[in-house]
Amino acid sequence: MQRLIRRNASATLQKVIKKLHPADIALLLDHLRSSEVKVVFSTLENTEIAAEVLSEISYSTAAELLETLKPAIIAEILTEMASDDAAEIIADMPDELTDEVLKLMEDKNSDLVEELLSYTEETAGRIMTPEFLALKGDLRVEDAIREVQKASDAEMVFYVYVVDQEQHLMGVISLRQLVTGSPDKLLKEIMISDVIRVRTDQDQEEVARLVARYNLLAIPVVTERNKLVGIITVDDILDVISDEATEDIMRMSGTSQQDIEASNAIQASRIRFPWILTNLIGGIGAFLIISRYTNLFQQLSALIGFIPLILGIGGNVANQSSTSVTQGLLSGVISPHRIGWVIFRELRIGLILGFSYGLLTGFITFFLTSMDIGCGIAIGVALSVVIIVSTMLGSFFPILFQRINIDPAIASGPIIISIIDFIAITLYVAISALILP
Amino acid sequence: MQRLIRRNASATLQKVIKKLHPADIALLLDHLRSSEVKVVFSTLENTEIAAEVLSEISYSTAAELLETLKPAIIAEILTEMASDDAAEIIADMPDELTDEVLKLMEDKNSDLVEELLSYTEETAGRIMTPEFLALKGDLRVEDAIREVQKASDAEMVFYVYVVDQEQHLMGVISLRQLVTGSPDKLLKEIMISDVIRVRTDQDQEEVARLVARYNLLAIPVVTERNKLVGIITVDDILDVISDEATEDIMRMSGTSQQDIEASNAIQASRIRFPWILTNLIGGIGAFLIISRYTNLFQQLSALIGFIPLILGIGGNVANQSSTSVTQGLLSGVISPHRIGWVIFRELRIGLILGFSYGLLTGFITFFLTSMDIGCGIAIGVALSVVIIVSTMLGSFFPILFQRINIDPAIASGPIIISIIDFIAITLYVAISALILP
Repeated sequence: MQRLIRRNASATLQKVIKKLHPADIALLLDHLRSSEVKVVFSTLENTEIAAEVLSEISYSTAAELLETLKPAIIAEILTEMASDDAAEIIADMPDELTDEVLKLMEDKNSDLVEELLSYTEETAGRIMTPEFLALKGDLRVEDAIREVQKASDAEMVFYVYVVDQEQHLMGVISLRQLVTGSPDKLLKEIMISDVIRVRTDQDQEEVARLVARYNLLAIPVVTERNKLVGIITVDDILDVISDEATEDIMRMSGTSQQDIEASNAIQASRIRFPWILTNLIGGIGAFLIISRYTNLFQQLSALIGFIPLILGIGGNVANQSSTSVTQGLLSGVISPHRIGWVIFRELRIGLILGFSYGLLTGFITFFLTSMDIGCGIAIGVALSVVIIVSTMLGSFFPILFQRINIDPAIASGPIIISIIDFIAITLYVAISALILP
Repeated sequence: MQRLIRRNASATLQKVIKKLHPADIALLLDHLRSSEVKVVFSTLENTEIAAEVLSEISYSTAAELLETLKPAIIAEILTEMASDDAAEIIADMPDELTDEVLKLMEDKNSDLVEELLSYTEETAGRIMTPEFLALKGDLRVEDAIREVQKASDAEMVFYVYVVDQEQHLMGVISLRQLVTGSPDKLLKEIMISDVIRVRTDQDQEEVARLVARYNLLAIPVVTERNKLVGIITVDDILDVISDEATEDIMRMSGTSQQDIEASNAIQASRIRFPWILTNLIGGIGAFLIISRYTNLFQQLSALIGFIPLILGIGGNVANQSSTSVTQGLLSGVISPHRIGWVIFRELRIGLILGFSYGLLTGFITFFLTSMDIGCGIAIGVALSVVIIVSTMLGSFFPILFQRINIDPAIASGPIIISIIDFIAITLYVAISALILP
């Protein structure tokens, strides 16, 4: 493909691309340089295919690609797209362009997009699609099937939602139930009225949890007054779950999702900068502690050499505990009611690891420091205590955060690691000073 | 609910539970103590409901609960379950019990379960369900609809797969196409023959990627010879995506998914132990470096105090880079062909962060060390270099790992952090020794 682009063989290129699935074209775009991306994208003469391809790549890349086109063409392509995708792409474009494009779009579509944009990011209202199939309860099954056959515009139909005259959600019928139902019955007679639904302002993570728990293919979105305004399909939920996982991982490392997408180094640095500040503050704290024990280090310089070992092991042990507890809480393996049990389990792990690594490191120290038994004991004991305390703190913070409704993933992040570094160094010098003469 | 259990009000309890959705009972079990879980579980007299509840909780918990029952009842409950869930639960039970239960299960079901268990864990073959709807290509649409109406046993039907006489996958028809097709046509006339499929030995992560990319509700699983043996539905893919994310996060922290599920502290310690070894080795390396510069630290004891700061910031900066690059690669935002660009971007971020934090820390050091300008310069310069090198290494390792087909998530784990700690301390003492007299 790259060879075709370099050879400027646009006719052949067009032929090759025509045969591909839009998702494959999207995948291809992900693997090309941005100049090549523009060439490939320009061969998609059909706005319908362009729309399908853009729905499959990241919203920010899609926005960048569209910005190079004329507003009229942008509007045309966005009109072809599902309005939830169109809304997310428009949200990533500069404000002036947004206004112009919205004006150029067909009224029906721009209204839908503007409605979606009116909801907060990462809520059900923002990610739902306002195109869905809703039928009145007093329709006959036979007629309903005919409606389904006509409704090519609505996103993949799996369920038919039943509403009253004011669009209030009354019930749901699966496509399969509809097909197997007797033609003469009314929809309200065969519908399930106990529908699992979400409100427009509910967090997308909660929506994903409901869809996963009840194995749904789509979930209806209603207003506070139970008016049906959209649906969220399972393919969007797949994206939500991936995105939320990435968000957690980024948060654990003291940065954020925006970092990945920032093409600009200054932007990315601005995201990372504040997290490093916590290390700086922790580091200054450690400096102040160590300064108070200058004499100890002057007399026994071997102690200096073990600072990295104590910090490295303490940090890792804390991280293992906090991650294990955090993931246990998030995945439901650890119930919030068994917290005493969790802390007790981590305490035992801390004791096992603390005792074994304390002993091992004590022995190694004894040989490294030319058979100095005092130094071996001091390092061994200090490391044991640091491991036990780090395990405890590592399991305590996520539980605390969960209780006060903060994302427990932060507990594995730089703030807590800085606190644990500081505590580890304090324990190290205090215990060494106590044991050594 | 807990009050009802404590009061031993089993009749009321049973009445309350009867009204709940199986997924809600499962959620309830997650929030109860294990003794309470047993009480609630025992009120589910109906094996069908018990089966549904067990499908919704973690496989290991389900296995634990079942083990308390008689083998005949276990077999009865497992027979009611989808065979993919049954297989995973059986895989978590002790071997003797497994054999007994399989013998007691209905032949048809135990054969299916044994077939699933014959595939490697985390492959398409292991997570697929062998119960699906496949029809012959020369069937008429009308008759096919009748078959769909009869097929209540197959997992949620969205697609009808079309096969030849030897069960080879020929095409697919969506339920919607079937309903809207003219009754007299043959299936092979209206089917899409270009079906996206997976082989039994493909990794579940790859399967999830395909389902997400093409927005599928189910994907057919075929043998090497294209014989259709099962399907994987999107609800199972939701679980795969969550599990793989947890696996990545655990791996980043030097532990594993098994850690969360290990009820036994010794088991969990055994998982965490080896990762700490990398810190121990890195720590000993750092000790050897520092020992060679004992004179330097004796003369300028302020340098000791800054060791934690250098290590803390170096580690965090490396972690930010490696996580950002890893997630960028995994999510497709960073294309493997733009690696030069990524490294250049991280270099610029390293320069920005290195320069700003070097300057800031140099100033702070100047004041902390009673206006010692040499010390301020040494620490500032050393920190700058450490930040730049850590950023580079942090972005380099995930790219390297991806190239040689190792999970890049390991690059944020303890091994790399230990290496970076070691390099940071080496740079720190070398630069300080160079700058200070």
